[in-house]
Amino acid sequence: MKSMLKRPIGVFDSGIGGLTVVKALTETLPTESIVYFGDTARVPYGTKSKSTVIKFSLENIEFLLRCGVKCIVIACNTASAWALPELSEYFRVPIIGVIRPGAHAAAQYTKNKRIGVIGTKSTVFSGAYEDAVKEVDASIKVYSQSCPLFVPLVEEGMVRGAICNQLVEDYLKKIKRSQVDTLILGCTHYPLLTNSIRAYMGKKVKLVDSAKQAARDVRGVLMGTQMLTDSKAKPKYKFYVTDEPQHFHNIGKRFLGRVIEHVDKVNGQH
Amino acid sequence: MKSMLKRPIGVFDSGIGGLTVVKALTETLPTESIVYFGDTARVPYGTKSKSTVIKFSLENIEFLLRCGVKCIVIACNTASAWALPELSEYFRVPIIGVIRPGAHAAAQYTKNKRIGVIGTKSTVFSGAYEDAVKEVDASIKVYSQSCPLFVPLVEEGMVRGAICNQLVEDYLKKIKRSQVDTLILGCTHYPLLTNSIRAYMGKKVKLVDSAKQAARDVRGVLMGTQMLTDSKAKPKYKFYVTDEPQHFHNIGKRFLGRVIEHVDKVNGQH
Repeated sequence: MKSMLKRPIGVFDSGIGGLTVVKALTETLPTESIVYFGDTARVPYGTKSKSTVIKFSLENIEFLLRCGVKCIVIACNTASAWALPELSEYFRVPIIGVIRPGAHAAAQYTKNKRIGVIGTKSTVFSGAYEDAVKEVDASIKVYSQSCPLFVPLVEEGMVRGAICNQLVEDYLKKIKRSQVDTLILGCTHYPLLTNSIRAYMGKKVKLVDSAKQAARDVRGVLMGTQMLTDSKAKPKYKFYVTDEPQHFHNIGKRFLGRVIEHVDKVNGQH
Repeated sequence: MKSMLKRPIGVFDSGIGGLTVVKALTETLPTESIVYFGDTARVPYGTKSKSTVIKFSLENIEFLLRCGVKCIVIACNTASAWALPELSEYFRVPIIGVIRPGAHAAAQYTKNKRIGVIGTKSTVFSGAYEDAVKEVDASIKVYSQSCPLFVPLVEEGMVRGAICNQLVEDYLKKIKRSQVDTLILGCTHYPLLTNSIRAYMGKKVKLVDSAKQAARDVRGVLMGTQMLTDSKAKPKYKFYVTDEPQHFHNIGKRFLGRVIEHVDKVNGQH
């Protein structure tokens, strides 16, 4: 049996967006190996119901466990919102989502106790960010807005220009009016819209990227459970998807910040 | 065994858009019963690869066959483009897609032998409309454009206004410049954008709705195989989806033109 410490970190996402979490992990934990699983045949999750997201997440966790991972990161905000509370207690390995890290960071940043949250319909409907913020400070006001067209916009690479700016304005109008000083980008795709969102919200509003916060939580959990790798070898990164890998390979660079060398397709029920 | 004639027509789609085909069928064949299957847990198909769309389509056909249908209509353009040529020969019941009916109608309409086609990435990439048009007249020029943001736009109900009009202009600019006199709306969602598309393309350009054309083909096939129902009873409509039915129920009216009374969820591998 492979030493527990040397085992990879497992990361799953509904598709490609979770690569922003992988990027943050490689920066925060540069010696750790990673297995990434993107459910590209069934993407997106953010428009789907709780029971379906839980079912898909369970299948994804089982796949990663068969890969021998030492912990699991749910990179998808929607799956973190719906599936993490339901599933984490069933497994021995630690499971870390992106909601709580993002929410707690935002709760620490805010001075005026007004936080905005943007995400998919499912994430916003779940109320998970609001609940996690209020764990830290129940007096903080949370203003949430779902932005369903942001994901397809980013997937199309339309992260600037008239349509992008118009959509940002339409979706963020109410939150801006609420005078938040902190805005949680509650979906893996949204950090790619940072320029447009910052231009509209103004530089004084702090944008919280849940991916970066989650990577710090993962480091904390691995330290706390004494599972940080002791390997001096170059870390290995493996990528699995459920649809043909071509599209993932092509646009993955946008999210990961570097070229993905090899992607494997997983068949059927993973 | 139920009389063959009285059996329902089976219709499947990646999600909700195929209800425009159901609507056309109820108008063209008002005495026929229909079983509709929407794969809402795995929607959309239009951004996914050929092998995945074929696999999903095969599962959907098998589900409809278990419902005892007398023929199958593939309401989804992407599935018609990728899966119909691969799968139709394996089954005894007739399988009718939406590509050929739309393409043939357009080939008959065009006077200047210039046809535009808009669809999902997969549909356009497949070249299926172009091939089907050239079956009728190889001298016709076909100008294709994928419009990946149209589906989420329609699902969000954003079928008018500045963003909608800007996207229509961006996507259709090249096709308009090509001076087509006929434009195929090669995706079940696009007929809901008719007003905006017509305003941009001008009234002289004929818009071809594949759903309506497909319904006529279904009638032709049922007549030709002597399978039109002889029942005088009120037809029955059944709806099955793979995600929770709520969303389908809520926005289905937009596509079907009337309230859907009951939707059942199908679990697991259907």
